Amino acid sequence: MNFTERLRVTQQKRNSLLCVGLDTDLRKIPRSVRGSPDPVLQFNKQIIRATRDLVCAYKINLAFYEAMGGHGWRTLHRTLSHIPEDVITIGDAKRGDIGHSSGFYAFALLEEYRFSACTVNPYMGMDSVAPFLKNTSQGAFILALTSNPGARDFQHLKIRGAPLYEHVIRAVQRWNTKQNCGLVVGATRPKDLRRIRALAPHMPFLIPGVGAQGGDLQLAVRYGCDAHGELAVINSSRGILYASGRGDFAEAARTAAITMRDEINAHRDRFF
Amino acid sequence: MNFTERLRVTQQKRNSLLCVGLDTDLRKIPRSVRGSPDPVLQFNKQIIRATRDLVCAYKINLAFYEAMGGHGWRTLHRTLSHIPEDVITIGDAKRGDIGHSSGFYAFALLEEYRFSACTVNPYMGMDSVAPFLKNTSQGAFILALTSNPGARDFQHLKIRGAPLYEHVIRAVQRWNTKQNCGLVVGATRPKDLRRIRALAPHMPFLIPGVGAQGGDLQLAVRYGCDAHGELAVINSSRGILYASGRGDFAEAARTAAITMRDEINAHRDRFF
Repeated sequence: MNFTERLRVTQQKRNSLLCVGLDTDLRKIPRSVRGSPDPVLQFNKQIIRATRDLVCAYKINLAFYEAMGGHGWRTLHRTLSHIPEDVITIGDAKRGDIGHSSGFYAFALLEEYRFSACTVNPYMGMDSVAPFLKNTSQGAFILALTSNPGARDFQHLKIRGAPLYEHVIRAVQRWNTKQNCGLVVGATRPKDLRRIRALAPHMPFLIPGVGAQGGDLQLAVRYGCDAHGELAVINSSRGILYASGRGDFAEAARTAAITMRDEINAHRDRFF
Repeated sequence: MNFTERLRVTQQKRNSLLCVGLDTDLRKIPRSVRGSPDPVLQFNKQIIRATRDLVCAYKINLAFYEAMGGHGWRTLHRTLSHIPEDVITIGDAKRGDIGHSSGFYAFALLEEYRFSACTVNPYMGMDSVAPFLKNTSQGAFILALTSNPGARDFQHLKIRGAPLYEHVIRAVQRWNTKQNCGLVVGATRPKDLRRIRALAPHMPFLIPGVGAQGGDLQLAVRYGCDAHGELAVINSSRGILYASGRGDFAEAARTAAITMRDEINAHRDRFF
């Protein structure tokens, strides 16, 4: 099954477009788990246990684990082992290098860690992305329009009337011969999101920036989904992980995840 | 001392612009070290010992070490411990994320590993690069024009008459308030290299693609250096690491490094 279909089936079966971002910051996790030998793992385990029936995917930003040193590699591996088999895992690594080196990154992410998909930076072009697209069932979400202030610096520059990110999207459409490409699309500007969905009507979108980064959930659903109200992966990290800073963090995360999943589904019912 | 000055002093003191890329591929190292408990470390140690008086810098592409699993982290740390204090170390990681996450990558590369500099992808703009520029004495080489085929896909797209990579260079000039920015510039097209040096006359350039990737050494020196014949960091990986595939690999690497350093210096004498 190609990655796009795999995502669709997962979203249908679990009736959820919600993705929880396990961007776990040691400094932010509650005191109650800080005494554990591996507090980040302990925290992640409890978050996963509390939310695993509510999500279509977990996204793990590798920056947080790299910053932990050699230890982080083990924590990441063990975290992944607690995620149910039928949930999509996204290695949010934003990698990209010349083809040969990208091949090593793809090996690490897709074969060592066995992520279902990862995020990739397009700046170096096709040969830098290709190694991530080798296995049909595993996908790559390519950065198109991101939700940070720096997105304005280059992504919006106009080339023959269209912003750079549109050129990226058109290229990714061409690369998508195995139906395993997706796009990272920040939800901060709904007008852009609508336009991007029109350009890539059948592609999975990873939409961060809803919640802590100030995106609007309703518009993310309305313009981020495909015509069936699917294929948008709507990520929330801090809003769920740190819903409570105390011992009840897992229940609070569950409550926050239920609220968000249901809100997304209410918008889907309304628009699709 | 700011990073640009630090690089200049190192190049003057060692009379070398040569950078050896420790992109060590387990499958390519000679049988004689493969029996060691950590063959990549053993290989790197011997390469460093054989070349450490000949270079201004070592560049380590993190992809190769990530692909080794948890083990790779340790090998990387230990490799770094064998590099003399007064040689520049470049973490070739091509990272980039929203500011907060980039901060974690910067921490890992510049504080955990203590690289002198690292490579960064500009696609996400200023806040994604800023965390790598916090310490004046440590630098970031930002991808401008790369030497792979995919460079054509986006880097050469014209925006108001100038290719995207020129817009990146102009932005990096603005960000360079601490004199610790550099650029990654592929050596495959000398005309481009000359133009880029004119745009950024005082900035360090990391120039890969000389040797295995087919660049021309003479042109890399002539157009990659600043007006003093300095600030180009000319990288060779495979041409030095695998100069011999047998037990004499370290001596062969030394010979190859001497040849390349001297050839670079001959071109410097001629043009500067």
